[in-house]
Amino acid sequence: MKRTCIAVLGLMVVPSGEALAQRSAVEVARAYREAHGAEILRDFRELLAIPNVARDSVGINANAAYIRDRLAALGVESRLLRLPGVPPIVYGELLVPGATRTLAVYVHYDGQPVDSSRWSNAPWTPVLYDGALEAGAGRLPFPEPGEPIDPEWRIYARSAGDDKAPIGALLPVLAAFAEAGITPTSNIKFFFEGEEEAGSVRLGRYLEDHRALLDDIDIWLFFDGPVHQSRRPLLTFGVRGVTGLEVTVYGSNRPLHSGHYGNWAPVPGQMLAELLASMKSRDGRVVVEGFYDTVEPLGELERAALEALPDYDGQLKEELGLARTEGNGASLAEQLLLPSLTVRGLASANVGALVRNIIPATATAALGIRLVKGNDPEHMKDLVEAHIRRQGYHIVREDPDQATRLQYPRIAKVTRSGGYPAARTSMDLPIVQQVVDAVREAAGDELVLVPALGGSLPLYLFTDLMAKPALIVPIANHDDNQHAADENLRIANLWYGIELYAALFTMAPGQSPVQDR
Amino acid sequence: MKRTCIAVLGLMVVPSGEALAQRSAVEVARAYREAHGAEILRDFRELLAIPNVARDSVGINANAAYIRDRLAALGVESRLLRLPGVPPIVYGELLVPGATRTLAVYVHYDGQPVDSSRWSNAPWTPVLYDGALEAGAGRLPFPEPGEPIDPEWRIYARSAGDDKAPIGALLPVLAAFAEAGITPTSNIKFFFEGEEEAGSVRLGRYLEDHRALLDDIDIWLFFDGPVHQSRRPLLTFGVRGVTGLEVTVYGSNRPLHSGHYGNWAPVPGQMLAELLASMKSRDGRVVVEGFYDTVEPLGELERAALEALPDYDGQLKEELGLARTEGNGASLAEQLLLPSLTVRGLASANVGALVRNIIPATATAALGIRLVKGNDPEHMKDLVEAHIRRQGYHIVREDPDQATRLQYPRIAKVTRSGGYPAARTSMDLPIVQQVVDAVREAAGDELVLVPALGGSLPLYLFTDLMAKPALIVPIANHDDNQHAADENLRIANLWYGIELYAALFTMAPGQSPVQDR
Repeated sequence: MKRTCIAVLGLMVVPSGEALAQRSAVEVARAYREAHGAEILRDFRELLAIPNVARDSVGINANAAYIRDRLAALGVESRLLRLPGVPPIVYGELLVPGATRTLAVYVHYDGQPVDSSRWSNAPWTPVLYDGALEAGAGRLPFPEPGEPIDPEWRIYARSAGDDKAPIGALLPVLAAFAEAGITPTSNIKFFFEGEEEAGSVRLGRYLEDHRALLDDIDIWLFFDGPVHQSRRPLLTFGVRGVTGLEVTVYGSNRPLHSGHYGNWAPVPGQMLAELLASMKSRDGRVVVEGFYDTVEPLGELERAALEALPDYDGQLKEELGLARTEGNGASLAEQLLLPSLTVRGLASANVGALVRNIIPATATAALGIRLVKGNDPEHMKDLVEAHIRRQGYHIVREDPDQATRLQYPRIAKVTRSGGYPAARTSMDLPIVQQVVDAVREAAGDELVLVPALGGSLPLYLFTDLMAKPALIVPIANHDDNQHAADENLRIANLWYGIELYAALFTMAPGQSPVQDR
Repeated sequence: MKRTCIAVLGLMVVPSGEALAQRSAVEVARAYREAHGAEILRDFRELLAIPNVARDSVGINANAAYIRDRLAALGVESRLLRLPGVPPIVYGELLVPGATRTLAVYVHYDGQPVDSSRWSNAPWTPVLYDGALEAGAGRLPFPEPGEPIDPEWRIYARSAGDDKAPIGALLPVLAAFAEAGITPTSNIKFFFEGEEEAGSVRLGRYLEDHRALLDDIDIWLFFDGPVHQSRRPLLTFGVRGVTGLEVTVYGSNRPLHSGHYGNWAPVPGQMLAELLASMKSRDGRVVVEGFYDTVEPLGELERAALEALPDYDGQLKEELGLARTEGNGASLAEQLLLPSLTVRGLASANVGALVRNIIPATATAALGIRLVKGNDPEHMKDLVEAHIRRQGYHIVREDPDQATRLQYPRIAKVTRSGGYPAARTSMDLPIVQQVVDAVREAAGDELVLVPALGGSLPLYLFTDLMAKPALIVPIANHDDNQHAADENLRIANLWYGIELYAALFTMAPGQSPVQDR
């Protein structure tokens, strides 16, 4: 029945290749949004209310089913691809008779874990505000149909920005097209992942298992990440990879009274501080041996794009309250082209009201590593481990037993995370230029081209394993508190997404670069 | 009525000064304990079940009332001394007609705050085990009257060791004396403090307000702290003082995505690590300028006692699972005669299951400082603050506002704790020698004399402000997890306390050193 529906839509396909048709689709989408803004927000709120941490299988499956059903209701042939005990992929096809090109749309519907105590509202209770909470915004009721909507409003919930925003924008575009009888100019394959924030561990397996479904794709479009900090629209050709490790150092086998043993028993918090301090210079440069050795240099086009980037650092420093940055004043864009080593968490006993006069038994640091093209995740963790060894530590994988404690003066438990390498797509492929043109249609001349994003996506699976071009087409505001508490989406960015997707789905149908399919 | 009761006891006073009489009191106490062991544990359990964190006024007042009532029931004229909004002092008098000497007994009935998640049982639900939990001990029911009691059993609860153990031992001694008609050889004044673990902030005020009650005291006996790590009994002539500070360093004004900003935005956990690492050398020596400059040297007698101390370090390292100690192998006893600087807690965002890919906005370290004779608490904190400034930090007292953030490249919020200085009583005073002799009566030749304990008590108020000798007479086991989770008391140590107090309360009545009172 769904195929029938697409076929019916197919009969109404707009004549190909005309700028007029493209503008029409954007205008149609805008008009639909203006008429149905309250309903779009209501639907988005419904989606955001479903808890979506990858390890919460009930919540994850509820998200997947919801997205599958919404796609199906809008004429997309959709279903769940499953591996046992793993968040499913929501897969959908919108096949257009006569189309010579296939776009794939990637979105991830899972979100980062939450520490609810840091949120102003429950993370999965979406709340509307008349601006940014940091700026003292006030809470609003969700609008009723027909009521005006200020694009500076924000909706707060886990994944509002990362990465349910594209779903909130996609569905209205499909509805608008259905209502207006507009047919996309490409086949579209939708691919919604459910464990991106948990490291996309089984994504490669899913791609391998369903290669037959995906092999005719010409380009992958990643609907994820934030636009430029200047709020200018953005198109990105690569991402940093990601990995990490957690390091725990040990003092005595139980916490000790800091009076009776202080000055004699080793202090794990102090040992950890010394270890972390040894990894970076005071200006933020990583001094772990070999850390920068495998970085692959940029090409000419990429270097040119980098130089054309708007200089937003001064404004950003002011916004973030920073009088200093790492890298001795190098620009953010430059710094993102280097691998990073970040203390993303520290813990040893308690601070604040629960502090006690003890020497804690352990201290732990969670270290995040971002990778650039050329860095291998395992190799980079090996380098950090080798550094820890050079500081005199014996490395263990489990808490040390008494014999191990008595044998080694310094012991560090290192728990290695998974992760994946960076990826970059060449700027000069014809289909890449088609996408750039379509994005410019919705985004205008403000469009910023970025060789590689600071954040991470499992893009390498597509660019390297599947050997396809892959671009990142973000819509979220940069100040969306992605990954942190009080994550949010600015409504103007949701509206931008709707117009952008309308342009992409109706972009000029070029010759497919895959000639023989 | 209570005074009458004491007067009656007074009629039965044992002839003074005979070793026979002293032994009798110890023997009487031992026999009483052997006959009533189960009841003694039951009563102790009842006391331990009353929550006793200083800031919990309901729990604290319940403890004070309980102790007052138990003392009163045993013939001690007792009452609560109060200041508004502060834990009360339980004050009791046992005045002996004809006594020429007045002993004061100090105990604190409050305990350290708890992090319940780290305890094997609820902290105020006392549980009996057949040994140490760390050694895999099994849980036991409390014994019925007449059932045998193994002295290696342990009772687990907050303050089991620190510092309700002396109360658990004191009350049976008074009961035994009443039953056997034994009268102490000194007047005894009981003084139970309720905010020691919260810094004894109002203790000086209490002492000043009630100077008239306390001025005739000849020596203060502090029933607190653990015995030697070898399990040998201990008598201590001084304590380290204590103070501390909490340091928070700042990155951006909100947590950032570690991908989009990692390598550019300052990382508070890294800054904090560098700051802490700058404070100590790798062997644990504090390199904060001036940190050791005000240490007062030991006298001849103290140095001799120090040299006579048993060498227990090797065994202790094995017990604690340490292949290395701070101070390049200096003994624990020597190291305790120096001030210490200890990281007692660290926090920045999360580690473990809740870790997120962020650059946290802040990182905090709780630092404890232990002081020795000569160190002033405020001066020592000034030194640490000066060190922080020398590392390029601007110091604030509240979270910085945006203007402050934009002005200073490195900002540290320093919150100073209260605290108090160290204290030491000279070993050669006659009344001190009387106490040493009485302790040796119960403790035997194993007695260890320690010039200064590593832990802290507000002893300076007594030695300096009240100008009285003050000794510490501990009974708890050293491995009682004092201040930490799973605090406990070994039953043998409770039994030791009963005999020790019986000896002290009936020690040879020497000439009062205060001739003219």
